[in-house]
Amino acid sequence: MLRIAVIGAGRIGKIHSGNVARHPRARLAAVVDPIEAAAKTLAQEHGSQWATDAAALIAGKEIDAIVVGSPTNTHIDLIERAAAAGKAVLCEKPIDIDIAKVDRCLENLRKKPVPLMLGFNRRFDPSADALKRAIAAGEVGTVRQVIISSRDPGPPPLAYLAASGGLFRDMTIHDFDMGRWLLGEEPIEVYATASCLVDPQVAQHNDYDTAMVIMRTASGSQCHINNCRQAVYGYDQRLEVFGSAGMIVNDNLRPTTLRRFDSSITDAREPLLNFFLERYAESYRRELDAFVAAVLDQKAVPVTGEDGRRALMLADAALESARTAKAVRLV
Amino acid sequence: MLRIAVIGAGRIGKIHSGNVARHPRARLAAVVDPIEAAAKTLAQEHGSQWATDAAALIAGKEIDAIVVGSPTNTHIDLIERAAAAGKAVLCEKPIDIDIAKVDRCLENLRKKPVPLMLGFNRRFDPSADALKRAIAAGEVGTVRQVIISSRDPGPPPLAYLAASGGLFRDMTIHDFDMGRWLLGEEPIEVYATASCLVDPQVAQHNDYDTAMVIMRTASGSQCHINNCRQAVYGYDQRLEVFGSAGMIVNDNLRPTTLRRFDSSITDAREPLLNFFLERYAESYRRELDAFVAAVLDQKAVPVTGEDGRRALMLADAALESARTAKAVRLV
Amino acid sequence: MLRIAVIGAGRIGKIHSGNVARHPRARLAAVVDPIEAAAKTLAQEHGSQWATDAAALIAGKEIDAIVVGSPTNTHIDLIERAAAAGKAVLCEKPIDIDIAKVDRCLENLRKKPVPLMLGFNRRFDPSADALKRAIAAGEVGTVRQVIISSRDPGPPPLAYLAASGGLFRDMTIHDFDMGRWLLGEEPIEVYATASCLVDPQVAQHNDYDTAMVIMRTASGSQCHINNCRQAVYGYDQRLEVFGSAGMIVNDNLRPTTLRRFDSSITDAREPLLNFFLERYAESYRRELDAFVAAVLDQKAVPVTGEDGRRALMLADAALESARTAKAVRLV
Amino acid sequence: MLRIAVIGAGRIGKIHSGNVARHPRARLAAVVDPIEAAAKTLAQEHGSQWATDAAALIAGKEIDAIVVGSPTNTHIDLIERAAAAGKAVLCEKPIDIDIAKVDRCLENLRKKPVPLMLGFNRRFDPSADALKRAIAAGEVGTVRQVIISSRDPGPPPLAYLAASGGLFRDMTIHDFDMGRWLLGEEPIEVYATASCLVDPQVAQHNDYDTAMVIMRTASGSQCHINNCRQAVYGYDQRLEVFGSAGMIVNDNLRPTTLRRFDSSITDAREPLLNFFLERYAESYRRELDAFVAAVLDQKAVPVTGEDGRRALMLADAALESARTAKAVRLV
Repeated sequence: MLRIAVIGAGRIGKIHSGNVARHPRARLAAVVDPIEAAAKTLAQEHGSQWATDAAALIAGKEIDAIVVGSPTNTHIDLIERAAAAGKAVLCEKPIDIDIAKVDRCLENLRKKPVPLMLGFNRRFDPSADALKRAIAAGEVGTVRQVIISSRDPGPPPLAYLAASGGLFRDMTIHDFDMGRWLLGEEPIEVYATASCLVDPQVAQHNDYDTAMVIMRTASGSQCHINNCRQAVYGYDQRLEVFGSAGMIVNDNLRPTTLRRFDSSITDAREPLLNFFLERYAESYRRELDAFVAAVLDQKAVPVTGEDGRRALMLADAALESARTAKAVRLV
Repeated sequence: MLRIAVIGAGRIGKIHSGNVARHPRARLAAVVDPIEAAAKTLAQEHGSQWATDAAALIAGKEIDAIVVGSPTNTHIDLIERAAAAGKAVLCEKPIDIDIAKVDRCLENLRKKPVPLMLGFNRRFDPSADALKRAIAAGEVGTVRQVIISSRDPGPPPLAYLAASGGLFRDMTIHDFDMGRWLLGEEPIEVYATASCLVDPQVAQHNDYDTAMVIMRTASGSQCHINNCRQAVYGYDQRLEVFGSAGMIVNDNLRPTTLRRFDSSITDAREPLLNFFLERYAESYRRELDAFVAAVLDQKAVPVTGEDGRRALMLADAALESARTAKAVRLV
Repeated sequence: MLRIAVIGAGRIGKIHSGNVARHPRARLAAVVDPIEAAAKTLAQEHGSQWATDAAALIAGKEIDAIVVGSPTNTHIDLIERAAAAGKAVLCEKPIDIDIAKVDRCLENLRKKPVPLMLGFNRRFDPSADALKRAIAAGEVGTVRQVIISSRDPGPPPLAYLAASGGLFRDMTIHDFDMGRWLLGEEPIEVYATASCLVDPQVAQHNDYDTAMVIMRTASGSQCHINNCRQAVYGYDQRLEVFGSAGMIVNDNLRPTTLRRFDSSITDAREPLLNFFLERYAESYRRELDAFVAAVLDQKAVPVTGEDGRRALMLADAALESARTAKAVRLV
Repeated sequence: MLRIAVIGAGRIGKIHSGNVARHPRARLAAVVDPIEAAAKTLAQEHGSQWATDAAALIAGKEIDAIVVGSPTNTHIDLIERAAAAGKAVLCEKPIDIDIAKVDRCLENLRKKPVPLMLGFNRRFDPSADALKRAIAAGEVGTVRQVIISSRDPGPPPLAYLAASGGLFRDMTIHDFDMGRWLLGEEPIEVYATASCLVDPQVAQHNDYDTAMVIMRTASGSQCHINNCRQAVYGYDQRLEVFGSAGMIVNDNLRPTTLRRFDSSITDAREPLLNFFLERYAESYRRELDAFVAAVLDQKAVPVTGEDGRRALMLADAALESARTAKAVRLV
């Protein structure tokens, strides 16, 4: 039984708390949030303890692991405290929006290793997972092209943008990870173009809301990503892997299997699931499964700090490319 | 080159005339209609002759074959005149709505045989044809169940009903033929239930507008047909063949391959093709191909008078069943 | 908190026990099975008590409700004991395979009423539920035709058939309930035809493995059901509701959203979910939710004993029809 | 009636000849090919004249228009001769692979204007056309992203590559035109990356077989193109237009509407149509319609020489980008 503290009682903390509470091999030891009311409410819902001081809890003996769902700028501190205390960490992406800080953090972790798993939850989506296994089984032959369509249902508040690190580090970072994972090979060159087509105010934050990316690997395989902060038809999450022996496409998940026919349309399906909490509910459960199993069974975590660092490097490269109109080469 | 006269300048006559005129191995020798203006207009469109007297034309030497698209009550007379004159016939369904007359006609034809092909055009739909070939190739194993969904976009004028022979002989007859063809075995028992759900006035014509049928063969395989004179989403034409080794479904054909996504629906396709002239345009062309090839190459026609008779027998049995609430056994 | 004993530690008992154990408003008070090892194993998995004597437990004070997942011939006795002890019951279908016994049981229950909910789990499938709500909202207008395709992945052991009550009472009964529910009106006439196409030995048990049914309501709306004990492509569960304003179709649920393209096929999806435990996992959870909420909140259960009785009447009528080749009228 | 000479009796000439011969407002005046046997065979099939000397025919009085389906390096000479003789031209893409020559040709044409229509046949595909009209009708709102997937079933012979102008000018050129057309705005920046993943020998011809492109317009809208010379599942032609009010996707066209279910797969559709002659058969017919109507009714042709020039400019820019790893700006 793994005793887990969930740090952060926001929407992502709620998801993790619920999953920990229901997990057969885990126990929700505490919910931690500087806002006591938030921590308390969430903890009581699951019959767990609560705290406002993560540092003390991490240093103590009542927990074995932390799940980090607090703001990005707290991640490194929490990871390093966990490492110091020998606690395992499941950390939401990104580790930080500053690659230099991430490098230092991972360097420090090498000296005092604890299991650190990055929360690239989409890898644990049953369909994405089946796709990855199909590629590994050779079903598409050699991968030639990967296409990732990833559009949010609506933009975050403008206030969110400042601390977000920008479109590439905040939103595309999931797709960079997905691209690396499906390509099965490191991208060596990244090109991006980006615009503000949803909301011109986004430009005032030096950010973008609509982007296209191309990545290339050493072997010449290619990956395209398209992003937009607003798709009126819902949270659009599609994958396509094209190879020498065929293609596998992962379509969107729907709330039901109904199709409607009337005098104006046929075969119409419902709007897509609202957003990531709904679309990836099962992924979060399976992600926690993987984390708990890795820690308890002393196996390698399936998504590492290095995976987090690589995705951030791609995001930084994309940002530079969008600003310079040149493909950026990764070393 | 087969010299063909098209009898009837109505909507079906127009389809056939156009196809004959464009056929590489046929020539539209004449368009015949008692209404001279109709015959003339259609004939001129295709640069052919026209006539008002079918009998004289059939008896004469200027044609090799007739395509019968005139009202049902003229079919037998035309077939018998053609037989007397040694002309081949492609006749729209049904031969007649009176099975006794059909029996006599086919009996007479046995004495003076000419090629007689029935216009069960749906057999020539590329998808239906591919389905039949897949069954023959063993792709579904032994056929266990066939399901035919066949709904019109809107009801015919009430005036049409009186001469139509009723829902089963006029509309379902296509599905009876399709059922026999896909089952690959004669139905020996028919049950039907029918209602007036579209228009209560239909009941005043002793007719129905909405029906369900079940047929059973000697080996125990089963076929379901559902019909309605009105589907607001368009001409609904679907097939399903379920067997010991799998299932093949034939979905509706669409005008385009577009799928639409907006804030209320996703994956929405267009309304179905309007009606049989649009849906089965290609089938009518391929039907004519088959007729021309059979006559010129002296091969058996692929849909016979007996096929027409069998479908009518099933329609009669269904009508009796709907009236008696008993399955009707075919001898 | 509703204290529930699950009676029966077989595959359906396992599903219910797990759902009860995880339910926020219920507690798994006991697992009961005459085979102690089975009860004990399942109980220990969920940290609950176990028992071999259901009667004693029902009469006692440690439980508020029972979920009946034991063999069909034990259902009435358990229901009546629960009624005598004032305990609520969620009972798997059918109540019994003998309609006379069911009538007496329901009559007895009227004298000493407790909440009795029938386990027609498919009503709680999110898509079926959305379909029912769409009909209620008028989306298809007046319902004209309902089509239910329901095929099992493979036949049960022959030994199972003897006690099952036969195809119509064991398998089709779910579809009879679904038909009634979607039609929104009682069928007044039933016709069925049935065969042994999967396994000829089934005929030796006076049973069938492949059937088609048509039901008709007083208003003339129609419902078709097709069943087979074996579909090699998996557990096939589809619904179609056709009305004056449109049609809604419920397609099969899949394990993933992947579509495959290779040199022989395109758009291929995976085999369907294996069987009802996988296909209706969510339905069983939602069914339990509905039961718990009804009992704790003192509301009417959404599926009643009368629903169970009606479905059985339709099954009996279908069996008679299949034997007599006549539609059977329900009084 | 427009008297048309088809120049070139190869596979594309055959398509055009057949369409001209069957066109109600056109007459196939001649088939021209330097290889007399090829010209003669094709001409005889359609009952037309044939010739080996295009120049003489163009200069003469027996034709009103030419359809140019001869090798690319003959296009400009034919266009200029037609202009000199006042004959209308429907020319296969590209006008030439050298943009300077194209510029001069179009400059010359301005002095002696005749109708010149470029054969970007995909614009006349019924689905692409419906998509363009839907965009124009505002169905997707403001266009933000266009995604074009365009993969050939198999690579051309290596010998073909030398004269082809390379992947971007030969294959992607259709997609550049489609992108411009669907964006409704000129791209101002092009980035491309390209590899030899199908056949390493392609690299020896300084060419590529697998590419990804991103284009950007002044307003910030974006277009992605992906190409490969080999898709084992057939000729893959898909479009996606994403805008502020929704998305419309154009899926692949199939030979039938069948879907197969067996023990290993479900919903499987057939392989895609083999290649452009099959996939775009209807487009070629509608393209000819548009050309004939424009010339006879003295309206502007719907695809101009300038459209041909713009697509070639984008191809040249993509090639430069692929070689320099920089986005190329168009003036």
